[in-house]
Amino acid sequence: MKHVHFTEVKLEEPSEEGIKDMKVRWLISKNDGAKNFAMRLFEIQPGGYSPFHQHDWEHEVFILEGSGIAKCEKNQEPYKQGDVFFIRPMEWHQFINTGKKLTKFLCLIPHKK
Amino acid sequence: MKHVHFTEVKLEEPSEEGIKDMKVRWLISKNDGAKNFAMRLFEIQPGGYSPFHQHDWEHEVFILEGSGIAKCEKNQEPYKQGDVFFIRPMEWHQFINTGKKLTKFLCLIPHKK
Repeated sequence: MKHVHFTEVKLEEPSEEGIKDMKVRWLISKNDGAKNFAMRLFEIQPGGYSPFHQHDWEHEVFILEGSGIAKCEKNQEPYKQGDVFFIRPMEWHQFINTGKKLTKFLCLIPHKK
Repeated sequence: MKHVHFTEVKLEEPSEEGIKDMKVRWLISKNDGAKNFAMRLFEIQPGGYSPFHQHDWEHEVFILEGSGIAKCEKNQEPYKQGDVFFIRPMEWHQFINTGKKLTKFLCLIPHKK
């Protein structure tokens, strides 16, 4: 059993383009022996955002802290603590921290893309 | 994109044996079109617990609120908000709410068992 506090996991700069003031912690990954899916924790500073993009795998998201806007292809919805998002393969999506505090959210992805 | 607050998802009584004062919300499941894995939110009252059991699939767990004990086959460790557990296939495990407040945690499982 792996047991850590999320703050013990390295906060990394993602290499993706189209992000602003966003970092990631890979909480559970292939390195832990997780064969099916990975758990990441993203941190977005006020004014920052994840990329506005699409891809052929899904996201399962849980908002831990913060508030802002979740943007889709044609509309946008406010997000807050305790919100859950299931983003289907090929759906456009972006999280924008329009709040005054750090946004933290879990985003899980399958390994098989 | 599915977008709900976790409290909008039905709080259900699990049918499993060996639990006490534990309920579950299936936040993202096959019913949403999630093909690879499911996100559940468990709520355990003070004094309650999940079953002490093992199975051939993994758990990816994030403690949202509360404190208590995570029991393994041979030892036990305290858990608190922000803790992450990766429970490998066939590892014995149990979460016991020894605190004074509700424990809430996310537990994700693969569909392919």
